[in-house]
Amino acid sequence: MAIIVINPNSSTSMTRQLEQECRQLDGLHHELCFETCNGSPGSIEGHSDGAMATFYLLEKIRAYENSRESSHASAYVIACFDDTGLEAARELTSRPVIGIGEAAMHAASLLSHRFCIMTTLQRSVPILQRNLDHYGLTNRCAGVFASNIPVLQLESNPDAYDQVLTAARTALQHSHGEALILGCAGMSQWVHAMEQDLGMPVLDGVRIAVKFAESLIDLKLMTSKVGSYRYPEFKGYD
Amino acid sequence: MAIIVINPNSSTSMTRQLEQECRQLDGLHHELCFETCNGSPGSIEGHSDGAMATFYLLEKIRAYENSRESSHASAYVIACFDDTGLEAARELTSRPVIGIGEAAMHAASLLSHRFCIMTTLQRSVPILQRNLDHYGLTNRCAGVFASNIPVLQLESNPDAYDQVLTAARTALQHSHGEALILGCAGMSQWVHAMEQDLGMPVLDGVRIAVKFAESLIDLKLMTSKVGSYRYPEFKGYD
Amino acid sequence: MAIIVINPNSSTSMTRQLEQECRQLDGLHHELCFETCNGSPGSIEGHSDGAMATFYLLEKIRAYENSRESSHASAYVIACFDDTGLEAARELTSRPVIGIGEAAMHAASLLSHRFCIMTTLQRSVPILQRNLDHYGLTNRCAGVFASNIPVLQLESNPDAYDQVLTAARTALQHSHGEALILGCAGMSQWVHAMEQDLGMPVLDGVRIAVKFAESLIDLKLMTSKVGSYRYPEFKGYD
Amino acid sequence: MAIIVINPNSSTSMTRQLEQECRQLDGLHHELCFETCNGSPGSIEGHSDGAMATFYLLEKIRAYENSRESSHASAYVIACFDDTGLEAARELTSRPVIGIGEAAMHAASLLSHRFCIMTTLQRSVPILQRNLDHYGLTNRCAGVFASNIPVLQLESNPDAYDQVLTAARTALQHSHGEALILGCAGMSQWVHAMEQDLGMPVLDGVRIAVKFAESLIDLKLMTSKVGSYRYPEFKGYD
Amino acid sequence: MAIIVINPNSSTSMTRQLEQECRQLDGLHHELCFETCNGSPGSIEGHSDGAMATFYLLEKIRAYENSRESSHASAYVIACFDDTGLEAARELTSRPVIGIGEAAMHAASLLSHRFCIMTTLQRSVPILQRNLDHYGLTNRCAGVFASNIPVLQLESNPDAYDQVLTAARTALQHSHGEALILGCAGMSQWVHAMEQDLGMPVLDGVRIAVKFAESLIDLKLMTSKVGSYRYPEFKGYD
Amino acid sequence: MAIIVINPNSSTSMTRQLEQECRQLDGLHHELCFETCNGSPGSIEGHSDGAMATFYLLEKIRAYENSRESSHASAYVIACFDDTGLEAARELTSRPVIGIGEAAMHAASLLSHRFCIMTTLQRSVPILQRNLDHYGLTNRCAGVFASNIPVLQLESNPDAYDQVLTAARTALQHSHGEALILGCAGMSQWVHAMEQDLGMPVLDGVRIAVKFAESLIDLKLMTSKVGSYRYPEFKGYD
Repeated sequence: MAIIVINPNSSTSMTRQLEQECRQLDGLHHELCFETCNGSPGSIEGHSDGAMATFYLLEKIRAYENSRESSHASAYVIACFDDTGLEAARELTSRPVIGIGEAAMHAASLLSHRFCIMTTLQRSVPILQRNLDHYGLTNRCAGVFASNIPVLQLESNPDAYDQVLTAARTALQHSHGEALILGCAGMSQWVHAMEQDLGMPVLDGVRIAVKFAESLIDLKLMTSKVGSYRYPEFKGYD
Repeated sequence: MAIIVINPNSSTSMTRQLEQECRQLDGLHHELCFETCNGSPGSIEGHSDGAMATFYLLEKIRAYENSRESSHASAYVIACFDDTGLEAARELTSRPVIGIGEAAMHAASLLSHRFCIMTTLQRSVPILQRNLDHYGLTNRCAGVFASNIPVLQLESNPDAYDQVLTAARTALQHSHGEALILGCAGMSQWVHAMEQDLGMPVLDGVRIAVKFAESLIDLKLMTSKVGSYRYPEFKGYD
Repeated sequence: MAIIVINPNSSTSMTRQLEQECRQLDGLHHELCFETCNGSPGSIEGHSDGAMATFYLLEKIRAYENSRESSHASAYVIACFDDTGLEAARELTSRPVIGIGEAAMHAASLLSHRFCIMTTLQRSVPILQRNLDHYGLTNRCAGVFASNIPVLQLESNPDAYDQVLTAARTALQHSHGEALILGCAGMSQWVHAMEQDLGMPVLDGVRIAVKFAESLIDLKLMTSKVGSYRYPEFKGYD
Repeated sequence: MAIIVINPNSSTSMTRQLEQECRQLDGLHHELCFETCNGSPGSIEGHSDGAMATFYLLEKIRAYENSRESSHASAYVIACFDDTGLEAARELTSRPVIGIGEAAMHAASLLSHRFCIMTTLQRSVPILQRNLDHYGLTNRCAGVFASNIPVLQLESNPDAYDQVLTAARTALQHSHGEALILGCAGMSQWVHAMEQDLGMPVLDGVRIAVKFAESLIDLKLMTSKVGSYRYPEFKGYD
Repeated sequence: MAIIVINPNSSTSMTRQLEQECRQLDGLHHELCFETCNGSPGSIEGHSDGAMATFYLLEKIRAYENSRESSHASAYVIACFDDTGLEAARELTSRPVIGIGEAAMHAASLLSHRFCIMTTLQRSVPILQRNLDHYGLTNRCAGVFASNIPVLQLESNPDAYDQVLTAARTALQHSHGEALILGCAGMSQWVHAMEQDLGMPVLDGVRIAVKFAESLIDLKLMTSKVGSYRYPEFKGYD
Repeated sequence: MAIIVINPNSSTSMTRQLEQECRQLDGLHHELCFETCNGSPGSIEGHSDGAMATFYLLEKIRAYENSRESSHASAYVIACFDDTGLEAARELTSRPVIGIGEAAMHAASLLSHRFCIMTTLQRSVPILQRNLDHYGLTNRCAGVFASNIPVLQLESNPDAYDQVLTAARTALQHSHGEALILGCAGMSQWVHAMEQDLGMPVLDGVRIAVKFAESLIDLKLMTSKVGSYRYPEFKGYD
């Protein structure tokens, strides 16, 4: 049995990096298994990228649930900050499914009155605002800010860290934010450095989602199959 | 140049029926072209069905936009009441894209203080409530109600009309609704009979979306390509 | 049968200008008839102007409905961006009644994630914010901004266009607006120039309301007479 | 100097009754002057009645403000539970203007967690809900309920009190309301009897508005003339 | 019988100052009695200070209610702008209990479309925002601003008035506020000077709460003992 | 180092029961230490009970933080479903502080679209609704329901389980709830039986808060000391 961490985009280097970070988590007591969505866009920036990635993400989950591999899955983590395909994924399984965006937002609201989110491009801002609305955490968010650095340059651009840090400092000061959420799985490796530089909690959704998944498994809590997340009826796909 | 009406599910009989109804619209002065999404589920009930259908819907729009057919499209109508894939579709084109759900909801708010929506299954209710939230029309909706008749039985079940009518009467009375929206494309053929039976406006999103598309084309209004609906960046699909 | 476009203020030159613009609309297939409200303020800036204009507007509609002229009216458009007297007007008729403010706001939400409104004076801003609240579109509006040019100087002041354009550019940039609504009927003539200058959709409520009225007539959709918009009881006016 | 209590409808008997009740208020230390709006509807039920009444109400206030009588007015109370013309009235004067609806709603929120409103006809419910939204008190209101007794039958119908009492009991029990607001000036005379019968606070907006007006005068607090309630510009009424 | 004005902090000099100001109120016709909460923090800045002060405040009210002194109390005013312990206090008595924060916020919404609040430290801002949310007045508030002057320096710092005035001017201009609320009982003595300096209504919650308490007593309105504010059950304190 | 689970009421039997349940949690890898608040009410029902309990709760936390015992605390759990004193507690420490109410509400929103809360008395309902508002989860809650069984009868009344189960069944059916939260620490022992009986996730906040505390400790996430939860200034307690 393992927590299946699925990177909904097709970047295997990003998946490897996430794995490396999660393996170092304190108190880890469940197995982790990492998946990449071949066929998906290389990164998820906007609604259309997200819709394409959802197709491959659901295929991945369906494979775990329908085959013998099913016995290996105890929970799923969706490792894109947009929480790509989260609701649809919950229909396919009774195991807990956690998005890294929602995990970080909920955790931040336990540690601060208002948090800021620093994401990559402006086009992701409305998607995150809509998620905040749906999760109910809009009033706890002091602002969603774009660093204007595309996902795939977070690693390649040597100035990326400094630019994001500067943008975060300005955003936090103007909005009275009390904690910072890293709004992209690609920023995960910065969490400790940035916490030191900012002097306040900095949250990485990937790590948090993994730990929350452990908690829900330990608590034997499952996705409700009454109502919204009932299994889909199979009406034939022509 | 034509308005492309896309049925995001794979039921060709439903597409034919929608076509028949739309062709009888008064004052129609743009060409209409109807499409079905082969590969999609036979009907869209829930998040997962919607996510699968979105994949095929986007493929359809991409085909119109990228090929020579592009010159034929003046607007797109998404003919599922869940407004399946609406935001993603808007990223792929500068032409207007209208969902039949949003069209009906906006129109109903021009004709009544509060409207009711009568849909098929309970599992669709949260999806429509979330759309209402996103469009801003939650306070204008007196309630979203499920008739508990699956999409594909709307045609086959001879009692379907009477059951939906009875459910609508009860819902309208208890919620003080002043107009009724038919919450599924498969109910389109009932619009005039039900208006007579209920004595209040009954709205069918398909017809309304087609007429609103005509309006936007006549007004030369296009989808904004600044911000949320910018064209997606092509980062390679591995 | 004609769509009756009523300018609720007493400026006949503004009415003439609106008529000129609407007559050039593509695909127009219903007759239009334009009315000015003699007795009303020369322009509508604030609650009290609006309340006075409503009195004369309702008189106008009552005249159409109660006399033989009634047969000529198929819908009403209220051509003030404040949607002056809109709810009261809907009580007097079963025909569709559309405000130009609401028409533009609903249309903008079909074309962009968030739109800006550029109006005349600061005192109109709370009125439009309240309308947005009532229509439910507050979250879709990136901001209501005042150009500080009074209605009647929009025509007379040769710098008016440039001032409004500059104010719009600043507002859009700061608020991440993706479309611009012209927040006064007196700005209608600028719609095409400003669209070109801004490179995004610019919406004029008058044209949109006329086209939406055509749609509702074609769809045979009427104002609900159940509930809020029932005809008023005549209890004698002492 | 007197508080001017304006009944916006044309029923002089209702005005007389309100006067009689207000004259018995404890601790009254400002003069009261009562006005009826000849020309207005005999009662205000719906948007259109309200719009007509506003015209005559504003004329009344303008007369006080513009003539020598002005020296007599220290505050205005608008004695219709719909708060007819409230915002427009505030533009015409720097003296406090209080609606009886808002007075009762604010007071009830000081005495209970959630209050119910019992009004006359269903058509008034959306108007009061909109006012609650505008005042911000929607979440403090457990429900707005209609007794289905028209304003002018409150006096003439001998069973009116019992019917309203029964309706109130049911409404309070189902909605967990902790106080009751009488949602029509015509119910004012029932306040003490109903408080006894219900065993919880029952609020009459007329009396409360008069006492709040006294408070604001004593505190030398005036209507802000900066922003929304600036005096209207006179642009000529053609 | 007297209105009991309780300063929930332990500063007797602040209590004396509040008494001096309230005694000069126009039209005062009920006795006033002032209390200080020995044991409380010297000023209330933040949640923890508020929680400690609530303990002593409730003891004070319990003393009035349980002993012969009870006959002296006709209403209670809680003289801290955070409305410290307000809900708990309402459980202990059937007499009206008014917080100075809520009194000022409700009054400001009767005089302006949107008001600003100028408080002391940034740490109080979220507390006041939460109160606004609870009272429902968030949309009527143009902003809560911190002057960054601690409560106890308001008297001792000779530049305090000028610093608060400057901060208020900036805040009002940027937020289009139409009235100013003094967000700390310690600013009460500035109300008239600041009204003159700003040219708009400036509101001091202490005075307003006292006058509103007079109104509620005159109206014989009591705290509802049905539901939320029922007397606490005594289950023994081990 | 231990997670300090504080029962804010004075019932040692309830504390013992909580301890017994938490010790059986799967995957527990941090020490737990349980505290009871002598001096507090025997159970917390209403605002006033909560205010009294907060006083003793804060004393407890202050003792851990200020003495040598401090080294033992790695996080705090507040084991009352009202989340008594939560915000104040966060000011006193940089360690995570989790309320059992918020823990359950956040977890339920990861497992269901809408959840119900079943609490004890009606008087607790508004307190929980206010918490939901503050946490942002109001829209995710299908309803807060009272079983009308006081806290201290949950153990002593042999029919308590059946009565709560019946009330839960009715509430879930009418509100379309998809998961049930046990709205009182005293119901903790029922969690597994009720999950079996209801066939959907049933959540007990105590267990969840303990597991989430483990997660936050493992993630090295602390309460933000920037802004709202800064340490209180000590201004002397007279």
